[in-house]
Amino acid sequence: MRFNSLISASALLMAALAVTSGAAAGASSSHPTIDQDREVLFQVSTIDALLLAVYDGVLSVGVLKEKGDFGIGTFDKLEGEMILLDGICYQVKEDGFAYVVSDDLTTPFASVTFFDHDETVLIEEAANLTELVGILEASLPSKNVFYAIRIDGTFPYVRTRSVPAQERPYPLLVDVTANQTVFEFENASGTIVGFWTPQFAAGINVPGSHLHFITDDRKAGGHILDLRVDGVEVALDVTASILMALPAEGDFFDLDLTGDLSGYLEKVEK
Amino acid sequence: MRFNSLISASALLMAALAVTSGAAAGASSSHPTIDQDREVLFQVSTIDALLLAVYDGVLSVGVLKEKGDFGIGTFDKLEGEMILLDGICYQVKEDGFAYVVSDDLTTPFASVTFFDHDETVLIEEAANLTELVGILEASLPSKNVFYAIRIDGTFPYVRTRSVPAQERPYPLLVDVTANQTVFEFENASGTIVGFWTPQFAAGINVPGSHLHFITDDRKAGGHILDLRVDGVEVALDVTASILMALPAEGDFFDLDLTGDLSGYLEKVEK
Repeated sequence: MRFNSLISASALLMAALAVTSGAAAGASSSHPTIDQDREVLFQVSTIDALLLAVYDGVLSVGVLKEKGDFGIGTFDKLEGEMILLDGICYQVKEDGFAYVVSDDLTTPFASVTFFDHDETVLIEEAANLTELVGILEASLPSKNVFYAIRIDGTFPYVRTRSVPAQERPYPLLVDVTANQTVFEFENASGTIVGFWTPQFAAGINVPGSHLHFITDDRKAGGHILDLRVDGVEVALDVTASILMALPAEGDFFDLDLTGDLSGYLEKVEK
Repeated sequence: MRFNSLISASALLMAALAVTSGAAAGASSSHPTIDQDREVLFQVSTIDALLLAVYDGVLSVGVLKEKGDFGIGTFDKLEGEMILLDGICYQVKEDGFAYVVSDDLTTPFASVTFFDHDETVLIEEAANLTELVGILEASLPSKNVFYAIRIDGTFPYVRTRSVPAQERPYPLLVDVTANQTVFEFENASGTIVGFWTPQFAAGINVPGSHLHFITDDRKAGGHILDLRVDGVEVALDVTASILMALPAEGDFFDLDLTGDLSGYLEKVEK
């Protein structure tokens, strides 16, 4: 387990403008970077609502694509895994294949941003997902902001999953994933798409790393359960602002979201 | 302890458009209400960072006022209590008096929005802050979204506090408030300004109600520690989206924000 961190000081400084530009110098007329949609992580609903079976789509892919060109999520009725990459939205269905989706399809939970490559972390080797995430976290400049993660490469091994559309009464996510379909890729060229979320946003999104995968031909992929990497460059987009849009009707409205669902979350991520 | 809830169905429906407009009908070209700044709660930093003594201002009042005309917070070096009301930003200093602040002054923590009156809750009587909040919470249509709270009236009793500017090395907020200055108002005409935050946003903002007060002549006020009300109308702005802008440099960056600070928070609110 070895790594080199190639953090670009200038890129980091640019990212650090988020809420400090102007303010520090007392120049109130200059706008902070947060006014620019590109530097905002846009999120629909919360991970805990998804864990508690709020699966009805509330925002269309068309609107989502106005908020970012890069991201992950799921679709109406929990049908499959979302990968938004280079502005194209893919749905990895129960069969493991990726389909380009229409702008009319809706999502109950997704995170997107406009990906701007701020930093690079070189990972020479990681035997599994836990090791990859460990190396990555050790090289993050701060554990208190969000990062979009993009890894292009050829991966010795990737294991993914997807889930079928659900019907009412919706089962809990932990029960759906108990019957997930699992796919394995060997020496697969493709792209890993996801986010790193600070611990203080637990309940809102997945603390730590949440990664999806899609092959180079954009024909297959899914939610990453495990992987092995060998000499990859991790591209990070430092994102210090988050815009969370909550469903203001439907199942979400009456849900009891006061509990600690981290136990459920750990199960569904595996 | 009696109350009547005057929730306007049409107002609520408008608020519920947050992430459902267009999407439900599959009309991807229509924008959800979240595109409108008015329906977004804009927040600088997190309450846990403030509890852990991140007091340096990172965003100017000038920029903050572009994000809302209504809100609360504090100022650079934790100097006093912020009340943003009808677009004017006041600083209640250690002496209990309210001063209109310049746009150059910065804030380390604040929450603002453009106040649009969506709902009204009538409260006939509440003997203290706990009772007021209990009545209010019982009449919220959902405990999973944010509400801006405005109460104009004459209050039999209000107890507030403020704190002086701090110097490095900054003490924890719980130690600062142990020496807070307390003010009492009797039969005071004025406005209560604040927010109700869902439990799942603990760590990010103050779960439940967080209220500040300013008198009608806008000359005095502070962070509300307790109060008694008698026949007030609570005006609520239902806010389903939140834009959280994190400091991307300074003390915030290296802070350990993984702990549960709810014990600290309870002390500083009193």
